[in-house]
Amino acid sequence: MRAFASDNYAPILPEALEAISAVNRGHAPAYGADEETARLQEAVRAHFGEDAVAFPVFNGTGANVVGLRAMLRPWQGVICAESAHLNVDEGGAPEVLGGIKLLTVPTPDGKLTPELVSRRIARVGDEHVVQPGVVSVTQSTELGTLYTVDELAALAGHAHAHGMLFHIDGSRLANAAAALDVPLSAITADVGADVVSFGGTKIGLLAAEAVIVLRSELVEPLRYLRKQSMQLASKMRYVSAQLNALLADDLYRRAAGHANAMATRLASGIAGAVEVTQAVQANAVFAILPPGAAEELQRDFKFYVWDEHTGEVRWMCSWDTSEEDVDAFVAAILQVVEGAVAGNEQRGV
Amino acid sequence: MRAFASDNYAPILPEALEAISAVNRGHAPAYGADEETARLQEAVRAHFGEDAVAFPVFNGTGANVVGLRAMLRPWQGVICAESAHLNVDEGGAPEVLGGIKLLTVPTPDGKLTPELVSRRIARVGDEHVVQPGVVSVTQSTELGTLYTVDELAALAGHAHAHGMLFHIDGSRLANAAAALDVPLSAITADVGADVVSFGGTKIGLLAAEAVIVLRSELVEPLRYLRKQSMQLASKMRYVSAQLNALLADDLYRRAAGHANAMATRLASGIAGAVEVTQAVQANAVFAILPPGAAEELQRDFKFYVWDEHTGEVRWMCSWDTSEEDVDAFVAAILQVVEGAVAGNEQRGV
Amino acid sequence: MRAFASDNYAPILPEALEAISAVNRGHAPAYGADEETARLQEAVRAHFGEDAVAFPVFNGTGANVVGLRAMLRPWQGVICAESAHLNVDEGGAPEVLGGIKLLTVPTPDGKLTPELVSRRIARVGDEHVVQPGVVSVTQSTELGTLYTVDELAALAGHAHAHGMLFHIDGSRLANAAAALDVPLSAITADVGADVVSFGGTKIGLLAAEAVIVLRSELVEPLRYLRKQSMQLASKMRYVSAQLNALLADDLYRRAAGHANAMATRLASGIAGAVEVTQAVQANAVFAILPPGAAEELQRDFKFYVWDEHTGEVRWMCSWDTSEEDVDAFVAAILQVVEGAVAGNEQRGV
Amino acid sequence: MRAFASDNYAPILPEALEAISAVNRGHAPAYGADEETARLQEAVRAHFGEDAVAFPVFNGTGANVVGLRAMLRPWQGVICAESAHLNVDEGGAPEVLGGIKLLTVPTPDGKLTPELVSRRIARVGDEHVVQPGVVSVTQSTELGTLYTVDELAALAGHAHAHGMLFHIDGSRLANAAAALDVPLSAITADVGADVVSFGGTKIGLLAAEAVIVLRSELVEPLRYLRKQSMQLASKMRYVSAQLNALLADDLYRRAAGHANAMATRLASGIAGAVEVTQAVQANAVFAILPPGAAEELQRDFKFYVWDEHTGEVRWMCSWDTSEEDVDAFVAAILQVVEGAVAGNEQRGV
Repeated sequence: MRAFASDNYAPILPEALEAISAVNRGHAPAYGADEETARLQEAVRAHFGEDAVAFPVFNGTGANVVGLRAMLRPWQGVICAESAHLNVDEGGAPEVLGGIKLLTVPTPDGKLTPELVSRRIARVGDEHVVQPGVVSVTQSTELGTLYTVDELAALAGHAHAHGMLFHIDGSRLANAAAALDVPLSAITADVGADVVSFGGTKIGLLAAEAVIVLRSELVEPLRYLRKQSMQLASKMRYVSAQLNALLADDLYRRAAGHANAMATRLASGIAGAVEVTQAVQANAVFAILPPGAAEELQRDFKFYVWDEHTGEVRWMCSWDTSEEDVDAFVAAILQVVEGAVAGNEQRGV
Repeated sequence: MRAFASDNYAPILPEALEAISAVNRGHAPAYGADEETARLQEAVRAHFGEDAVAFPVFNGTGANVVGLRAMLRPWQGVICAESAHLNVDEGGAPEVLGGIKLLTVPTPDGKLTPELVSRRIARVGDEHVVQPGVVSVTQSTELGTLYTVDELAALAGHAHAHGMLFHIDGSRLANAAAALDVPLSAITADVGADVVSFGGTKIGLLAAEAVIVLRSELVEPLRYLRKQSMQLASKMRYVSAQLNALLADDLYRRAAGHANAMATRLASGIAGAVEVTQAVQANAVFAILPPGAAEELQRDFKFYVWDEHTGEVRWMCSWDTSEEDVDAFVAAILQVVEGAVAGNEQRGV
Repeated sequence: MRAFASDNYAPILPEALEAISAVNRGHAPAYGADEETARLQEAVRAHFGEDAVAFPVFNGTGANVVGLRAMLRPWQGVICAESAHLNVDEGGAPEVLGGIKLLTVPTPDGKLTPELVSRRIARVGDEHVVQPGVVSVTQSTELGTLYTVDELAALAGHAHAHGMLFHIDGSRLANAAAALDVPLSAITADVGADVVSFGGTKIGLLAAEAVIVLRSELVEPLRYLRKQSMQLASKMRYVSAQLNALLADDLYRRAAGHANAMATRLASGIAGAVEVTQAVQANAVFAILPPGAAEELQRDFKFYVWDEHTGEVRWMCSWDTSEEDVDAFVAAILQVVEGAVAGNEQRGV
Repeated sequence: MRAFASDNYAPILPEALEAISAVNRGHAPAYGADEETARLQEAVRAHFGEDAVAFPVFNGTGANVVGLRAMLRPWQGVICAESAHLNVDEGGAPEVLGGIKLLTVPTPDGKLTPELVSRRIARVGDEHVVQPGVVSVTQSTELGTLYTVDELAALAGHAHAHGMLFHIDGSRLANAAAALDVPLSAITADVGADVVSFGGTKIGLLAAEAVIVLRSELVEPLRYLRKQSMQLASKMRYVSAQLNALLADDLYRRAAGHANAMATRLASGIAGAVEVTQAVQANAVFAILPPGAAEELQRDFKFYVWDEHTGEVRWMCSWDTSEEDVDAFVAAILQVVEGAVAGNEQRGV
């Protein structure tokens, strides 16, 4: 049975495995001087625009920290949503390893707006205060919501107008592109992003992500900072080959589109019976269940309680989630919820 | 043609590829809660002793930084050879990301001795001075030399006697174990090592290394520090499966033994004709060629000039280097050197 | 004319100057091995309890960072109010220099409560999340409010019950002790504090503060971390002598009590005419003025706009603020506010 | 009796105390917006050239770390002598707090040369290697030696020619200027220095040093980095006033010249009887005594054993060392050495 715990539980795409296998012959220069990585640069220019330069890395935290380090001086911080992965799920890597202060903003749906960003712009030029240097958004967000193309463009413009750079944590950028039905460039280079973390792992690669640099003066810093940040793969051809496979023939789009569709199917299946707490726009469903229901469901299905204080749960779909998986899960949810409601009514809860 | 540039140029072992493929089915808990990683713990206990706990990571720099961070308080530093990878090849990761001062010692052969270590023990208890907290050795060393079991035990004992911990950068630990013809435990747990970086990449894995913790109070810190240091793989089963393959049926020993044998064959082939600068004890040969010879050889064979100032070159053998590769290279070296010597004599150099 | 901008604008106490002058004879061992610093240890034990050990430092940011570094492992963070000096006025020193993630909580009045602290205790043991390691409160707070003895004890108990340590940023601890009419120990050692930043500068010393350590195992770390954090004074006798003067004959209490009284006088003088936004419990008054009034007042009196977005202003009293200063300022405020109100009414604002 | 342990043991200059006292009236804007600091900028321009901007800080370690942080990107390091204060006496502040790797060079006399610097320039552009970004010299050096004006100019030129900046740790810059009989600008701005740590404490100030920035694009970074590095004094007028006093009427030159003369007197007094290990060019004398002699002398005179391994001792003179102090010390040394030599001869040592 497949889990709804995380897209990290899913296996890697058959195409990724095939790409690893295909490049496994002979010697190739280490650290990115190989032919697969050269091909990746072409693919990245095709998908992210002519200025794009890719720096393959191992994981999403690494991609974010390396990218942000290149964008900031030590007295500058990052405006981001309080719920951003950067802030809640990276073990303090941005602060402790990267020396980066996060200037967080509470949001109802994981999305920044120019107005929310403006609240963190204060005391500009005051040496006592970490200066806002970057606005970072997650696309799709940690709460399964999406920025539209216009929203991204407005945020990038706002950042630039205030002397800041614009960063996209695209750990699930494939899901966003598929859901919005636009090319990757439309939600990165074209809206004015300066650096993008392009996620591979969650959509089905093995330790393969890339920092996409869209601003030429950041290329040289990235080169040194990737190595210093322990994110430079020696046998890089295996990382680049997977990314090439992901970008070829729009594999990323098909895989992500399927995961998104499964989340939609799940949300539809429980509509009316369960309180879904966030708009279901990518591959995640957030919900609040009646007391006791989550624990009961977790006996048969793996998933996470997202918020210990409210009991909100998160259900993730991945490239390999099947309609049968979803339907079985929906049936179980409905049954458990019905039972819980009845039981709670009986006990007067 | 295979290169003599680096064991990082070699492909991954067929068994590693097979291991990746074999675990690529169904969902598995992320971040190490999977069955392959559980199996890895068993394998690591079998090879490194009952106290050993493995923390898979992505690369050698990551392994070193994570391990050392767990061993040190901020006012403590690491005594290591000036030629240590930590000091010369990690882009400042130990200092800048790890906050670790390296207390380096010049060595003729890349090897520390208790006497050399003692030179860096001074002003103990003086708050103005970074206190020695760890002795770190590389086995086999960056110069292709080896510590004997007794030498390691003496260094570990010396470290412990002075209140320090003992760390082994085992990026090529497999080569050392094969060359010394001893089990892994004999050069790690049994000599008193506290933390070991166990290398997988250079011997033929894809982004798979492990920090081996042999001191129980460091297990909990390692757990947090691996994540914070951006070295926690989400789809960890693929990393652990490769490490399992490497440890099964002594694959690591066969692969490394072959690479070592090829280096010995290379050294034998050029004996008398070329100045070999370090004892050839693992899979590397260091040499100084007549003026102009290195450049000429590099037209056909990839390898690195190790020291820009002296012109010393490094030739590495890997698991897939063949006898034919070596013989062809030896022939080319002999021919180029002969020509260079003759030419230089003619020109009166 | 004296300013209401900051207690940092005030001169140093005559007793501090006298203390500097009195120790300015002959040679004395550097870095704290002098007699004045020995005497300071006695004074600190008398005021903060028998376990107290003082580490003189240069400034408040230094005191906080040094103290917190000693209390935390790298994967632990500090729960503090969003308005804490640590978070908003230390230029990122805790994060960038100290490697400390702040786990901030919005508060209405600058004060944490056990309930607010509990909101930041989540995912305990989860390696992806910076673990709460310290609760830090400011006494008196950045908003001029005070914790009662019972409130501090409850917070310390709560912290300890959850495996955390308790830190007090006492940059204005003298003001708090005077306002609460209790000895320093009553709001530090007796409530269960583990480390206290004891402020000297704001109450009238020249670059003299002290980290007070109340937990013996933190003494040794403090020693190294103070030096490493660039807060170890070589000619320390001059720092210690001032702290001795401050603690002698309860000078700190008289100076702070006067500053507090002046703030109360100011608040009383404007009561009814101006919206005071925080309880006036120490030496600060926070207020919101009619549009335009702050700018007009600032022509004659120096003070800060606290919040650029709301227009809230801050008026600080110091040890040398006189009743005449206050009365003149009150008169000016009343006049400006009256004019502004009239003008705004005319303009229909 | 005055000590020969350290210029940090000496009291502060009467003029410094007077300066503190003189500015101790009324309110003054904090953090450097006061009149004394404005006057300091004028004085610094007069002494260090028209481009000079002063940033007062608390201590020498702070000055060095703040200055170097402004000069470097995270992948760049500092070439300095192995004996540099930065490397041996700052508790790891450059590495751990500043994130700065030091690229050290052994020297016989504490002095870098262009040739020694060149040895650390290697693998330029190689991302695996911390790139040389700054050359830092100490003037006068930790070993009491001096760079000539020409030597400094050659080093600065060499640094600039290789794309590096040039930093002077001038913790004893006053001693150097006095000894060389040149103005401060002649050994800083005029030779091409980019940033200078100008020492005040060792020559007789109370927690007062300054970072002198001679390169305009580093002014803005310095401003933020000083605060973030916990080196921004709130009541800065007291720091600036002392620096003003030091620069006025060449007080720095008289005080340092006297200290230098006392060291020369000491060296002359023991010439022939004691092995002096370094040229005595500023205010320090380094010597090796017969076995047992140092311990015997330390019963009556405070001084440090400089090298635990060789037994080398250091004798420092300060602004208040008197001829009588020196003569008494010389007499004691001669007597102890004579006795030690006789005793050792008797025992056949």
